[in-house]
Amino acid sequence: MIPSKAGSAALTSIRIALDVMSGDESPSARMCSVIKLLTDKPDLFLYLIGDEVFIKSFLRMVPGIDWSRLAIVHSVKTVSMSDSPFSVLRSKQESSMWMMLELVASGEAHACVSAGNTGALMAMGRHLLQMVADVDRPAIATCIPCRKGSAILLDIGANVDSTAINLHQFAVMGSQLSSSVYHVYNPRVALMNVGTEDIKGNKQVRLASQLIQKDNRINYIGYIEGHAIFSGLADVIVCDGFVGNVALKTAEGVASLVKEELLATFGLNWWSRLLGLAVSPVLKEFCRRVDPVRYNGASFLGLQGIVVKSHGSADGKGFFQAVCQAIYEVQVGVSDCLMVDSGGGYTHSP
Amino acid sequence: MIPSKAGSAALTSIRIALDVMSGDESPSARMCSVIKLLTDKPDLFLYLIGDEVFIKSFLRMVPGIDWSRLAIVHSVKTVSMSDSPFSVLRSKQESSMWMMLELVASGEAHACVSAGNTGALMAMGRHLLQMVADVDRPAIATCIPCRKGSAILLDIGANVDSTAINLHQFAVMGSQLSSSVYHVYNPRVALMNVGTEDIKGNKQVRLASQLIQKDNRINYIGYIEGHAIFSGLADVIVCDGFVGNVALKTAEGVASLVKEELLATFGLNWWSRLLGLAVSPVLKEFCRRVDPVRYNGASFLGLQGIVVKSHGSADGKGFFQAVCQAIYEVQVGVSDCLMVDSGGGYTHSP
Repeated sequence: MIPSKAGSAALTSIRIALDVMSGDESPSARMCSVIKLLTDKPDLFLYLIGDEVFIKSFLRMVPGIDWSRLAIVHSVKTVSMSDSPFSVLRSKQESSMWMMLELVASGEAHACVSAGNTGALMAMGRHLLQMVADVDRPAIATCIPCRKGSAILLDIGANVDSTAINLHQFAVMGSQLSSSVYHVYNPRVALMNVGTEDIKGNKQVRLASQLIQKDNRINYIGYIEGHAIFSGLADVIVCDGFVGNVALKTAEGVASLVKEELLATFGLNWWSRLLGLAVSPVLKEFCRRVDPVRYNGASFLGLQGIVVKSHGSADGKGFFQAVCQAIYEVQVGVSDCLMVDSGGGYTHSP
Repeated sequence: MIPSKAGSAALTSIRIALDVMSGDESPSARMCSVIKLLTDKPDLFLYLIGDEVFIKSFLRMVPGIDWSRLAIVHSVKTVSMSDSPFSVLRSKQESSMWMMLELVASGEAHACVSAGNTGALMAMGRHLLQMVADVDRPAIATCIPCRKGSAILLDIGANVDSTAINLHQFAVMGSQLSSSVYHVYNPRVALMNVGTEDIKGNKQVRLASQLIQKDNRINYIGYIEGHAIFSGLADVIVCDGFVGNVALKTAEGVASLVKEELLATFGLNWWSRLLGLAVSPVLKEFCRRVDPVRYNGASFLGLQGIVVKSHGSADGKGFFQAVCQAIYEVQVGVSDCLMVDSGGGYTHSP
């Protein structure tokens, strides 16, 4: 499946497998990020999984491509956004997503990135990479910006019906990720709820709170409400995937609406338009600071391998950011930190 | 309980009962809004339920109070934020919240407003006001700002474990509220989910989608994701109360963070600070447009009476806004619109 010369050339590099085909945006958007990655990251080796003819014709349009730093892996199928997680295990074994995960499972790639169907990625990930001991279900974790620094939010969509035991396991994994990878000392872990009082929330959340409280590995600070997740009060915020997904996407929606409102306010009359021109660089800096693309790239935790999920609608810039996240996770050894044998063979310097 | 002269004086006015004691903020914050209400709303009669000595001493400090437009109802207990919904039905029958709801149940007041414990308010509301036929549980609905106009989001916290049948009923009530009260023609109703494809979401949401689709009273447009709830694509957004609560509070958190980031960006160096001074009126207008206080005041739907829930941490300005919401609901006859006999005796002009 993988050209042997590519395999040998890649032994000294960080090797990332990219699912070129899956996502809401066209594969061209992801190929644009490939070009930037090859330019910006000299130590990177990429497996590009997808339609070989398309990938080759895209790359041939770009002058100066170093073909020795990539391997094209041809796939004949693509997982669509409407494929069910159960059906893909049977029907999409020759898809770009499946073949990408196989490269991580075999150790050819240190990590992989896909912008495709989250449920399918989770089902295939569990099947091909296996779960970490003592973890029942993978969770997706992402960084969110806070008043000072950032926090980890999980799960943001892998599980839409989490039990108290699942939530407890997410708390353990989130805490390990925060301390080992983001170097937070004794990370403060909070559980998302509709209020901070003991009686608030549903049964799963209240039971999870008791389980987490009893766990000595976790520095549990109690419940946190939606408005406080960006306050910097907690380093890790644990919730069910349905709730986390809605929270994250709502945050993106508000940030986008607020930016539009701001621009509209500066266009209200000739004087504010004039002021808008004057403050244009300041507004650009502001937009950069609240740009969700900066935080694209969510980590699948609980799998024996590094899998990064890009936002489905990520453009080239966003997908690039997700691959950077994967590179970072390989460099800091996320799998090792989470006491997992990734089988990837890449050893990072301490 | 109610001074008879106050009762007779109030017959021609809109009569609102206010729970002065409950909420995160001190009762003084809510009393400040009382002063503003008496000044700004000449047709308003207020029942102030709480500690009589405190209320009287507060009012005596304000010159020119028209005592004929208010009645003080003394309560000896207050529902705290940590009281469980089950216990309050037995232990808090002499609380400000309970007595406020009794005034609506007896028809003395047309509507009531509390910033207190949501679960307790729901439990007492169900007990004292009874449910509308064909509705199993009340839902809390609020207006959220959109690109153009606004939308109704429900439930935002009355139920933290909604079944598919509950979600279907919320869709019916939300649609009726939108068309009858906010005059939206054939309101577009969407169901919150983690994706827009049929396979997405948990069992409850997928089953609710089928139920809503079959209901001819509802103009159902399918699933909606968190980032799209402010887009204006839907007039009514239906979700479980846990999810809605997190979404709403997350939106508030982001709006607040973004405002701070904006101010910080304008304080980065002497040039941007100078620009910040120049654009200060424009920034103020922007902050006003994204101010969550403008939307404070959520409606309990499904009860036989008008109950408005203010944000627990609302200041005087926010509580004032919630009372304005209650006045508006009395004026447009929310109870009648939702095919409910509120028993309030107030007849609005068409």
